[in-house]
Amino acid sequence: MYEPLDAALVPRFAGVPSFFRLPFLNDPTLVDVALVGVPFDGGTTNRAGTRHGPREIRNQSSLMRRINANGVSPYDSLRVADLGDAPINPINLLDALAKIEAFFKPIAAAGAVPITAGGDHLITLPILRGIASHPVGLIHFDAHSDTNDKYFGDNPYTHGSPFRRAVEENLLDPKRAVQIGIRGSYYHESDLDFARATGFRIITMEEFCTRSPADVISEVREIIGTHPTYISFDIDSLDPSIAVGTGTPEIGGFTAREAQTMVRKLRGLNIIGADVVEVSPPFDPSGLTALAGATMMFELLCTITAKAK
Amino acid sequence: MYEPLDAALVPRFAGVPSFFRLPFLNDPTLVDVALVGVPFDGGTTNRAGTRHGPREIRNQSSLMRRINANGVSPYDSLRVADLGDAPINPINLLDALAKIEAFFKPIAAAGAVPITAGGDHLITLPILRGIASHPVGLIHFDAHSDTNDKYFGDNPYTHGSPFRRAVEENLLDPKRAVQIGIRGSYYHESDLDFARATGFRIITMEEFCTRSPADVISEVREIIGTHPTYISFDIDSLDPSIAVGTGTPEIGGFTAREAQTMVRKLRGLNIIGADVVEVSPPFDPSGLTALAGATMMFELLCTITAKAK
Amino acid sequence: MYEPLDAALVPRFAGVPSFFRLPFLNDPTLVDVALVGVPFDGGTTNRAGTRHGPREIRNQSSLMRRINANGVSPYDSLRVADLGDAPINPINLLDALAKIEAFFKPIAAAGAVPITAGGDHLITLPILRGIASHPVGLIHFDAHSDTNDKYFGDNPYTHGSPFRRAVEENLLDPKRAVQIGIRGSYYHESDLDFARATGFRIITMEEFCTRSPADVISEVREIIGTHPTYISFDIDSLDPSIAVGTGTPEIGGFTAREAQTMVRKLRGLNIIGADVVEVSPPFDPSGLTALAGATMMFELLCTITAKAK
Amino acid sequence: MYEPLDAALVPRFAGVPSFFRLPFLNDPTLVDVALVGVPFDGGTTNRAGTRHGPREIRNQSSLMRRINANGVSPYDSLRVADLGDAPINPINLLDALAKIEAFFKPIAAAGAVPITAGGDHLITLPILRGIASHPVGLIHFDAHSDTNDKYFGDNPYTHGSPFRRAVEENLLDPKRAVQIGIRGSYYHESDLDFARATGFRIITMEEFCTRSPADVISEVREIIGTHPTYISFDIDSLDPSIAVGTGTPEIGGFTAREAQTMVRKLRGLNIIGADVVEVSPPFDPSGLTALAGATMMFELLCTITAKAK
Amino acid sequence: MYEPLDAALVPRFAGVPSFFRLPFLNDPTLVDVALVGVPFDGGTTNRAGTRHGPREIRNQSSLMRRINANGVSPYDSLRVADLGDAPINPINLLDALAKIEAFFKPIAAAGAVPITAGGDHLITLPILRGIASHPVGLIHFDAHSDTNDKYFGDNPYTHGSPFRRAVEENLLDPKRAVQIGIRGSYYHESDLDFARATGFRIITMEEFCTRSPADVISEVREIIGTHPTYISFDIDSLDPSIAVGTGTPEIGGFTAREAQTMVRKLRGLNIIGADVVEVSPPFDPSGLTALAGATMMFELLCTITAKAK
Amino acid sequence: MYEPLDAALVPRFAGVPSFFRLPFLNDPTLVDVALVGVPFDGGTTNRAGTRHGPREIRNQSSLMRRINANGVSPYDSLRVADLGDAPINPINLLDALAKIEAFFKPIAAAGAVPITAGGDHLITLPILRGIASHPVGLIHFDAHSDTNDKYFGDNPYTHGSPFRRAVEENLLDPKRAVQIGIRGSYYHESDLDFARATGFRIITMEEFCTRSPADVISEVREIIGTHPTYISFDIDSLDPSIAVGTGTPEIGGFTAREAQTMVRKLRGLNIIGADVVEVSPPFDPSGLTALAGATMMFELLCTITAKAK
Repeated sequence: MYEPLDAALVPRFAGVPSFFRLPFLNDPTLVDVALVGVPFDGGTTNRAGTRHGPREIRNQSSLMRRINANGVSPYDSLRVADLGDAPINPINLLDALAKIEAFFKPIAAAGAVPITAGGDHLITLPILRGIASHPVGLIHFDAHSDTNDKYFGDNPYTHGSPFRRAVEENLLDPKRAVQIGIRGSYYHESDLDFARATGFRIITMEEFCTRSPADVISEVREIIGTHPTYISFDIDSLDPSIAVGTGTPEIGGFTAREAQTMVRKLRGLNIIGADVVEVSPPFDPSGLTALAGATMMFELLCTITAKAK
Repeated sequence: MYEPLDAALVPRFAGVPSFFRLPFLNDPTLVDVALVGVPFDGGTTNRAGTRHGPREIRNQSSLMRRINANGVSPYDSLRVADLGDAPINPINLLDALAKIEAFFKPIAAAGAVPITAGGDHLITLPILRGIASHPVGLIHFDAHSDTNDKYFGDNPYTHGSPFRRAVEENLLDPKRAVQIGIRGSYYHESDLDFARATGFRIITMEEFCTRSPADVISEVREIIGTHPTYISFDIDSLDPSIAVGTGTPEIGGFTAREAQTMVRKLRGLNIIGADVVEVSPPFDPSGLTALAGATMMFELLCTITAKAK
Repeated sequence: MYEPLDAALVPRFAGVPSFFRLPFLNDPTLVDVALVGVPFDGGTTNRAGTRHGPREIRNQSSLMRRINANGVSPYDSLRVADLGDAPINPINLLDALAKIEAFFKPIAAAGAVPITAGGDHLITLPILRGIASHPVGLIHFDAHSDTNDKYFGDNPYTHGSPFRRAVEENLLDPKRAVQIGIRGSYYHESDLDFARATGFRIITMEEFCTRSPADVISEVREIIGTHPTYISFDIDSLDPSIAVGTGTPEIGGFTAREAQTMVRKLRGLNIIGADVVEVSPPFDPSGLTALAGATMMFELLCTITAKAK
Repeated sequence: MYEPLDAALVPRFAGVPSFFRLPFLNDPTLVDVALVGVPFDGGTTNRAGTRHGPREIRNQSSLMRRINANGVSPYDSLRVADLGDAPINPINLLDALAKIEAFFKPIAAAGAVPITAGGDHLITLPILRGIASHPVGLIHFDAHSDTNDKYFGDNPYTHGSPFRRAVEENLLDPKRAVQIGIRGSYYHESDLDFARATGFRIITMEEFCTRSPADVISEVREIIGTHPTYISFDIDSLDPSIAVGTGTPEIGGFTAREAQTMVRKLRGLNIIGADVVEVSPPFDPSGLTALAGATMMFELLCTITAKAK
Repeated sequence: MYEPLDAALVPRFAGVPSFFRLPFLNDPTLVDVALVGVPFDGGTTNRAGTRHGPREIRNQSSLMRRINANGVSPYDSLRVADLGDAPINPINLLDALAKIEAFFKPIAAAGAVPITAGGDHLITLPILRGIASHPVGLIHFDAHSDTNDKYFGDNPYTHGSPFRRAVEENLLDPKRAVQIGIRGSYYHESDLDFARATGFRIITMEEFCTRSPADVISEVREIIGTHPTYISFDIDSLDPSIAVGTGTPEIGGFTAREAQTMVRKLRGLNIIGADVVEVSPPFDPSGLTALAGATMMFELLCTITAKAK
Repeated sequence: MYEPLDAALVPRFAGVPSFFRLPFLNDPTLVDVALVGVPFDGGTTNRAGTRHGPREIRNQSSLMRRINANGVSPYDSLRVADLGDAPINPINLLDALAKIEAFFKPIAAAGAVPITAGGDHLITLPILRGIASHPVGLIHFDAHSDTNDKYFGDNPYTHGSPFRRAVEENLLDPKRAVQIGIRGSYYHESDLDFARATGFRIITMEEFCTRSPADVISEVREIIGTHPTYISFDIDSLDPSIAVGTGTPEIGGFTAREAQTMVRKLRGLNIIGADVVEVSPPFDPSGLTALAGATMMFELLCTITAKAK
């Protein structure tokens, strides 16, 4: 088992800012959970900057301790380490997608569960290409469905389209896909047609407001069942009061308490990977968005702990 | 019908930042809804800066798309455009009030509904002078009642007094006036006496916390009825976690979700104009307040759409 | 009775920024409530900066008026003034603790109730040494229990340990101590053992989320009873969306409305002192954390008013 | 003699932020030099915010010590204190001008030399009305001549016109007026005609770049002679790299070293007052502009010390 | 002739933020000088964000007046207008290059001189493709030579390589190319080999420090002669004290005064176009970099005025 | 030889932010130059925050390349690596001093030259205790002499006193000590007495302004000679326009070009260690101060390269 640096010996502002102050390792066979950065924002259609996300999330993750507020203690039962950043290419989108996919393949092959800090939402596509041998389920927290088709002419790969591509590539099983918190304004009335037609369950923010987090997650668990499932947490699912540092903020999002409650209630599912994406440090003057991202990564780790024990 | 620039062709960081990326027009007879900026903060008693509000709200309004999360699509049924900024005078308050009034008169004469980005709250007074031929109803979201009398000696015109002046000038019907979210501390126990004596319904934040947004708006609709009504949305009605960039922030305000819910439930009323005021960019390092302002303007537009169709 | 500067005569950006624009006094026998700054952060284990807290809280307290939104008007019945900053020593922790204690002793001797702006949470220890002649009750809003033992070897005095020391020194009666909002992650499963073993009632954020503020405070009042009690309000009990400028932010905290509601419901208790700690201006680019701190100080003053009349 | 708080006893972040940590006094007869704030920005034609200047300059002035780098020690020979803020009126320009003038009259009557922190540049006009019984000389550091005539129609009083008004009102002797550092772009070719026609010596930045500070000041001293003279230091005379927090920044200004050198070389002149204006804290995220303003005020005090001894 | 909005009638914070407050036009045949934005940062190898450059440069250009400090008055003799943003594609580099080139071709065909606000430095390549019918001279202010070859494998198009590509494509005549201010650290000793071998004259910052701006420009004019020449001004040629908001800041750059002096001394040359690139607003908390960019664009316009009259 | 990550393969925003992207090593015997962080600010008398310096300097050091602008290429001849942070104790000053000294002893014993990122200036004392077996020379760039005696009573160890202690402890030879750039205001006329009496050569900023950097360094080299010498670079020696993020900024400092020139001219001396101290990230909203710190560390490394080859 790997342990974070002890903050009562080495203060949290000291030392190398790895994820949760865990060791850096190169070999995925040595871990149960691989913490990874993917500093890529080449799929961003508006405000860039998520390429700086992994570094600042690591920085802020110094504030995390060993055990979450629910008493889950991941490092007691799991080997968790920082596997560094996936190689990317900031000026060549297709090369970047290939490099990311290639980085995740050996992680999956080693049986490790990756928890990734993005990067923009397009990175979920090559991650799924790398780890999803069969169509997997999806639990997706987001202000946007990200199932658009093409942008700026005929370009299929952007942070607005990863889940459409993933369905088309048979990486996702849309019948086991749930999107929670959708609330952004739309370009066209048909924006959600693809998702709905293929079977995604979309729980808009308006619906969420009429239910409790517990109730919503109870439905999610029923849809997801026991098959392999991926969790994608777009930081813009949170309200911008807590997460302004993102490319496409939409007011009216989840409070941190709602998000923490929902993620904690996902314990016991068959999670093969997770990510926290769209943290954009240049738009985050207080660092709070990166802190929220780091905290949600830690909560995801705790949620996965249940399964892995 | 005018259309926003298509963000899948022209990215949202490109092009002229008009309101919602709509065309700039000069002629109010060409529109059903006139989007206007009033960059005036000469009535501000403490922290100035709302003179920069219209420009930054326009900037952030690039993030809005065509249809709100409730499926309301204003540009399908309404001619909406940016009519630019009202002329003002930053060093001569009375001249500014006259100029603003003169700008709004032809808008009202053309039958267009103005949605205005301030500026401080004093601008509501000359807007009402310009568009209210008879006493109108008022739906007023704010942390403060803004019905004070005089400041700094004998000065009647400040952003703390517009609604008192509007009642005195017979522009507002106080029996059809509702103020929601009042929560600032008071100078004197009598601070709300004028409003209460003349018939305003004041729903304090404390009362709001014991009721649901739906319940509150249901009462509002009953008070307002079907007569012409103006909506004034002071950004400081929102909690400063989402709107710190304002002159007189008061903690404990509306969440964005509460505000969005309330504004959406006002559809179908007889709205003759609306404003979003008190966004002060120099106090808004993250730009979030201007984004909240732009979003509330868009929600107001969607609310008005119902009536105008 | 002392009165704040009248904001309708002297604008709030003008004049000396004392707490709530009240007079500066040196003699505690002239006041019923003593507003004090303790600009000390020598007990901070991670991000320093709360030494700048008193100055910025005073700055933002210019925004407070005379009467809170509940109609409580402290200056009608209480003599309240700014007694300046306690002397401290930024490079010698033990000397600082002695100086702070010595400053508070005459305040207590004069029968005045101190409301203090920190500084880090360690300052509560010397304040209690100065004012608690017998073990007192504690109402403690915080993300962390602050009952740890030693840091960085054998160092007993940090902002993570004041309440453990206070119990050991017989300043606090742990059977009459309540901690509300605890939610930070833990170093060890035993982190709360001392508090629980000695009798603290810990209401975690998770428990809080299942109850109403009114319900929680009702239990608190029962535990506290009528004996002398101290209130300590760590600004990190608030969600970082409203209070990012603090040394150890934890997402998922109280909304301002929840905090205001709870503090207001404490009226009538036998309060011998209160503090607002951990406001760290260097991490607060918008000034909102200091505003929240100033507002909570004003609410504490209003709560104490009830008793003192 | 009054002394600043000793920073080796009371750290500079503690205590009331008066100018240079000197006492607050009300009676101008007790001082040789009166430090005054004029928090007024009602004459500002573009970006407001200098109303917050005095408070932030006081804050940053905590960093000043007793003796400047040249060894001038003002508090050994002069009684210097903070006389607080002049009363102003943020929404009534003419009332503000009258109030400011009335505040400075007794200072001049007492024979004290005022050093003022603005506020926008219009405040120099009422200061001169208050203290200049005969036309005085002027040493004016600025990016702009501020001798324009009318703005926004027929408005004579703005921060672009104080020196034209002062000449017209016989407060300034234009034959003994020097403007140094003028470099802003112009509206019209005639922008400097009034100044030049009446006799101002204008040393543009372009000319300055070809000479040394010593050479320039030598000419200034010759023009000014031994008669009473006022020094007005607009913070925008400095390069915005050191003073971005101002309403009308112009790149290409003085370095701090050049400005310090010039002000230091003015010692021995017959200075009846001085000001540092146009520090606008809302546009100063790092606080550096206020620090530059505080430092220049201290240098002006040291320059005046020579005469007063 | 087109004129900026008159700031004495319409304050500079009001109205549409076009370049220098000039009209927006679509037709290049109507202008002598075309002001253009190219919001593209797809060639950026490290910190992105220059896609937001044109909008913020336009914003800050509101501070420019009609005539520069040297008395050059461009709008008296030239038709100058804002031609909007070139179309780009944020996720497809080659498509973006084609679109930019296509936008500039008709500008050149109309005989108008484009002055462009970037965008990253790669945009100079498609601009030259659009306007350079024969190899042109180059006056290039920069911290970096930008004549590298490939990045991230075999990618030829980045903001580190435009001038190498331009030479290879016969757009630039390296014998008439001067680079001034080069000072960044190097990857390899051979980093400048291509430039030197092909004939560029490189005036490093170290050399610059030993000469005067006038002396340097005198050499530049000799090299450039009377043939068509392009000026490219990378904002990182300025010291980051005045231009921190850029992707690759290097301390030790030009002061604003040095840069203004050099650009002003280029008058009379045969300039076919110019650009100001690498302004990155997300890294520019004070807005000063965009102000410097806007000012340098205005100085370039004044420099070009000489030729065009 | 160790090499930085290649930025043309791994972009500079990716990967672990070690100093200059070099490997992390634990064993000082493997290096010629040891890059070290000392995240300690317990000696700070005013604004803290330099505990965060090493992390942000590492972050910004990603912008450095392999070879400085003068062509010095340290990694060709020297083994350079990041040895991590010295252990410190944020709440116990004496323990911190002991820990820092203990960390540096084996570095000196291994014959490696440490280049350290602070931390406040007090850290130079334990570094010298660790590495100076005989009294060494000192080249000290600073706005302040840092040879004060006691603070806050009888406390000898602060960031204002390290060089006095070092002389007293026989770590420094004051006859071979030069301080350059001293310009802060003084508490007492005697502030420099100790330094001058013991033999320090103090070159104030005022003197510096009358000489060239080359001239100054020529004198320095004569004083220092060929004996072992330490270089201490306080970031506040730079003008705050380039280095506002520091505890005690003083306007009127070195430009970056002056500082780079001076450090470069120190090549060939017998340097046994160097530091860059007083970078305080919480006061550095743009990150520029940390970039300046990283660049000066790189220049120091290049300067040392000459000797070590």
